[in-house]
Amino acid sequence: MKRLSADPGTQPTPEVGTDTAATRGYIHRKDEHLKRLKRIEGQARGLQRMVEEEQDCIDILTQVAAMTKALQTSALRLLDDHLRHCVMHAAETGGEVPDERLREASQAIERLMRV
Amino acid sequence: MKRLSADPGTQPTPEVGTDTAATRGYIHRKDEHLKRLKRIEGQARGLQRMVEEEQDCIDILTQVAAMTKALQTSALRLLDDHLRHCVMHAAETGGEVPDERLREASQAIERLMRV
Amino acid sequence: MKRLSADPGTQPTPEVGTDTAATRGYIHRKDEHLKRLKRIEGQARGLQRMVEEEQDCIDILTQVAAMTKALQTSALRLLDDHLRHCVMHAAETGGEVPDERLREASQAIERLMRV
Amino acid sequence: MKRLSADPGTQPTPEVGTDTAATRGYIHRKDEHLKRLKRIEGQARGLQRMVEEEQDCIDILTQVAAMTKALQTSALRLLDDHLRHCVMHAAETGGEVPDERLREASQAIERLMRV
Repeated sequence: MKRLSADPGTQPTPEVGTDTAATRGYIHRKDEHLKRLKRIEGQARGLQRMVEEEQDCIDILTQVAAMTKALQTSALRLLDDHLRHCVMHAAETGGEVPDERLREASQAIERLMRV
Repeated sequence: MKRLSADPGTQPTPEVGTDTAATRGYIHRKDEHLKRLKRIEGQARGLQRMVEEEQDCIDILTQVAAMTKALQTSALRLLDDHLRHCVMHAAETGGEVPDERLREASQAIERLMRV
Repeated sequence: MKRLSADPGTQPTPEVGTDTAATRGYIHRKDEHLKRLKRIEGQARGLQRMVEEEQDCIDILTQVAAMTKALQTSALRLLDDHLRHCVMHAAETGGEVPDERLREASQAIERLMRV
Repeated sequence: MKRLSADPGTQPTPEVGTDTAATRGYIHRKDEHLKRLKRIEGQARGLQRMVEEEQDCIDILTQVAAMTKALQTSALRLLDDHLRHCVMHAAETGGEVPDERLREASQAIERLMRV
């Protein structure tokens, strides 16, 4: 979570091995996020195989929909972690940081809803 | 395009090397579809690297949105080819096939719009 | 279905009271489409009342999601009718019309998927 | 903002005329939200007129896409206000409230992304 470490006055940088509650939460879920993205990479390869083998268009489109759904789930989990740790942490530290974090988060949600 | 070849009375099967207008269109675009899916697979790998390197949440979410958009483009191109070849071919042959193709196409569109 | 009547060489214009299979299908479902849109208008009014009464944000957002879903259903039904009648009719008449209809339909699907 | 007033230990209830920073922000934007929803109601009526007048399918679908976009904008603005006021307020008060607010917010985002 380099974003938070860019705010050196309010918390120790994760790079030096500290494990604040915020950072721990992130590390714990990192494997989950990676596993989910690994599976999505597999779906992208599966789709290429389906096209190579000239499988049924409708079956391919069904797989594209399933992969898009998996990607949206991945986005929702990352966003939840972001709100729960980065934004909440900013809220606790106060100042102008929370506003900036919320502006960024809202823009990220907009980009995800308007793909 | 096995779907159409499952309809043996109305056209030669693509497997035996025939190249009807419908099949040719498909073969021509196959490389485009594969190239697009290959790029999407690369985006899935790039996202894993970003998570591994603990990059900024917002930057990761921006990449997820970009990848979702690329996947939707892939779906739209596949769907366009499907309507243009499979559905139109069915329309020309007549009988009950067009109804079935349209029902399938509408369901596919619904699955893509409701990810 | 003025779109088809703009193609005067291939079919009688609906305005003069003809009822081809294509036109009949459209007229039959018109009430369904209107009923659906009427309900959506009611949802828009319900949302205004919720905001006026300063109801819970989350409850309002839940209603916005429900209304968006209803609107997407409306779009899917209109699109299905369009493919089933206008595009299929174009396929049967042949010439350059089907290509143009498919191009339009794919663009419409893209606009709906990328709201 | 009845949600927050349901938490009587942490702030005065808005009903008795208090105007905390959180509540003021909400009141200020209420007119904007209502104006946006009013416009959306007008779009729903316009769509009914288009169907009544049997206008071009594609033009109707274009309007449905525009209306869906307007509704998503409305959702994004309401959500931004919710995060900015209700969730941030919860973050400042602490306890178990922030977790509950974040859980609700993530679920709302999921409902909006998965219409």
